[in-house]
Amino acid sequence: MTSTPLRRALLPQSVPLLIVTRGEGVESVHRGSVAVVAGDGRLLAAAGDPLQPVFLRSAAKPFQLTPFLAAGGERRYRLSTEEVAVAAASHGGEPFHTRTVLALLRKGGFTVDDLHCGAHAPMREETARALSIRHEKPNALHNNCSGKHAAMLLACRLFGEDPATYWRPDHPLQRRILDVVSRMTAVPEERIGLGVDGCSVPVYQVPLYNLALSYARVMGPRLTGEPAREFAARRRIIEAMTEVPRMVAGTGRFTTSLMREFGGSLLGKEGAEGVYAVGAPSRLAATLPASGAVGIALKIEDGAERGRDAVTVEVMRQLGLAEGSRLGRLRRLARRPVRNVRGEVVGGMKPVFSLDLFAPERTAGRPR
Amino acid sequence: MTSTPLRRALLPQSVPLLIVTRGEGVESVHRGSVAVVAGDGRLLAAAGDPLQPVFLRSAAKPFQLTPFLAAGGERRYRLSTEEVAVAAASHGGEPFHTRTVLALLRKGGFTVDDLHCGAHAPMREETARALSIRHEKPNALHNNCSGKHAAMLLACRLFGEDPATYWRPDHPLQRRILDVVSRMTAVPEERIGLGVDGCSVPVYQVPLYNLALSYARVMGPRLTGEPAREFAARRRIIEAMTEVPRMVAGTGRFTTSLMREFGGSLLGKEGAEGVYAVGAPSRLAATLPASGAVGIALKIEDGAERGRDAVTVEVMRQLGLAEGSRLGRLRRLARRPVRNVRGEVVGGMKPVFSLDLFAPERTAGRPR
Repeated sequence: MTSTPLRRALLPQSVPLLIVTRGEGVESVHRGSVAVVAGDGRLLAAAGDPLQPVFLRSAAKPFQLTPFLAAGGERRYRLSTEEVAVAAASHGGEPFHTRTVLALLRKGGFTVDDLHCGAHAPMREETARALSIRHEKPNALHNNCSGKHAAMLLACRLFGEDPATYWRPDHPLQRRILDVVSRMTAVPEERIGLGVDGCSVPVYQVPLYNLALSYARVMGPRLTGEPAREFAARRRIIEAMTEVPRMVAGTGRFTTSLMREFGGSLLGKEGAEGVYAVGAPSRLAATLPASGAVGIALKIEDGAERGRDAVTVEVMRQLGLAEGSRLGRLRRLARRPVRNVRGEVVGGMKPVFSLDLFAPERTAGRPR
Repeated sequence: MTSTPLRRALLPQSVPLLIVTRGEGVESVHRGSVAVVAGDGRLLAAAGDPLQPVFLRSAAKPFQLTPFLAAGGERRYRLSTEEVAVAAASHGGEPFHTRTVLALLRKGGFTVDDLHCGAHAPMREETARALSIRHEKPNALHNNCSGKHAAMLLACRLFGEDPATYWRPDHPLQRRILDVVSRMTAVPEERIGLGVDGCSVPVYQVPLYNLALSYARVMGPRLTGEPAREFAARRRIIEAMTEVPRMVAGTGRFTTSLMREFGGSLLGKEGAEGVYAVGAPSRLAATLPASGAVGIALKIEDGAERGRDAVTVEVMRQLGLAEGSRLGRLRRLARRPVRNVRGEVVGGMKPVFSLDLFAPERTAGRPR
């Protein structure tokens, strides 16, 4: 099919975020959009099209876990901090991840066969290689979403609902999750786009602005009309994710290192197809004209993972959230030089965007 | 680093070429540019920025093989058609590929250790899996460029030059190749950008228009000033590539199927980072206002391979180069539905561009 002017106009007005170089030349360009939003809803900074629709993918995981904890799942199943964290993870399938997920399953009398996420090779390459050497096939525990699915099964037990269909959009658990996503993103349910995620559960499409808003709000105080137990649940989830970040991603992963770097005070979560979301508390966001926490959301338009972390670090630099030696370390974590097959560096990557900063309290200048 | 207006202005003015959908929503967008050029240099059609610089990557392979054949390499080493084709291939590392490359090496007394391309797992997944099951490590023969490298080694033997440094930009063989690239693309040597390819040999950056031009010219008659033996060499290379397309890519690969579909009359070649080039003889291009062959070149701006084949087929459809049942088959070859981990289709891809057709001989209408 061919384009119509209408269709073309509906596509996001993204901007170049990062270039990939080879020798002296620019070889490829990753475009996208960035939104930085305060908990009160003010758009503090943006690049590209902050209103572009974006599927949350795994950035929805803290919200997908909320109904279970809000209903008392943590006490009922005596969940450890590690178990809470892995239930909101896109984990590497490392042994400490799969062990923890298996323990979760067993608490509800479930087995790996009850997981509907499907099996893929562990995201952590060393673990995948080790499996392969032992002639073992990856199973659903290795799926980066297995913790989320295990918690969904436990939620069915807790609520007395059918665990065999937990992944269906019309299952009461998924309805409860949609409600949380709707309230945290401030998008009415009927305006949230639905799709099927890689792991077969519903996935939610909202404007990028609203994803950023939800990450500001999840770090902040109780919202108007938010049930107390739901507020407590999402605080506990963020606490667990930031306390044991190795459970949330894994060895050598950017998200784990980013959260470690901030010693538990900052939330970072990647989503598939080039999504990244950050929640920073007011204290870290002191250089920004926001009285509360700040949420950052970005989408690499083409869905590439390459460069996503480097763009995240650059956004944090421009916002004054990362500087000095911490900035240096984050940049090294995010850097992926272009190498030839022999491993020699033959190119690199460079962010090429400037956030537009909307700063009513400031009349001149930008954070460095 | 941040962008300057200058830097941003220098990035290509690409357009959305293909959307990736999930459910009812657009999840990601691949932008890029297309150039369709006649052998006489006329720009027949374009999308985005047909002058954007593009590294040829593996689309340069027919030109990289030309000096060796022009110097009599085929007769000297009694090359089979398969051997000529694999020397211009981005092959899947399948047994029939590696056997052929090994035979090439032996004709010059070389071994796999003389290849400087590095080792990577076979592009053909079944072959990679089979290696892994046998606990064998991939070697340089499995590198998709090993045929090209083997021919470069033979060329050193033929020219009496050092085979240990054949990959260096200042090696006389690479100087000869640069000369061919310059003449076929009609870009002066000093204006060709140089980099290091994934397989460690020099890689060439020229405007997309000039890549398309070179693929029109390589299908066409002898060029002014072109040495007769060089003309014969590049004719022989195109003949071999189109005669045994399984050697040029491999089982299940788009390039192999595309060339088979046209029964040897059309040349297709992919390059890394979202490059595709097609050479179509005048007979196939009869619906276009060109008296000779036509070259097509496209670049997915973000370097993604996903969607590249579908964009290629859509360009051919809009040019009238593919229609009816052939179009249907090509679309099926290029199609890559978005699946969840369980293998269920949860999204798709759609081209969203319209080529601007520049057709002085036509005053109205477009090819269907």
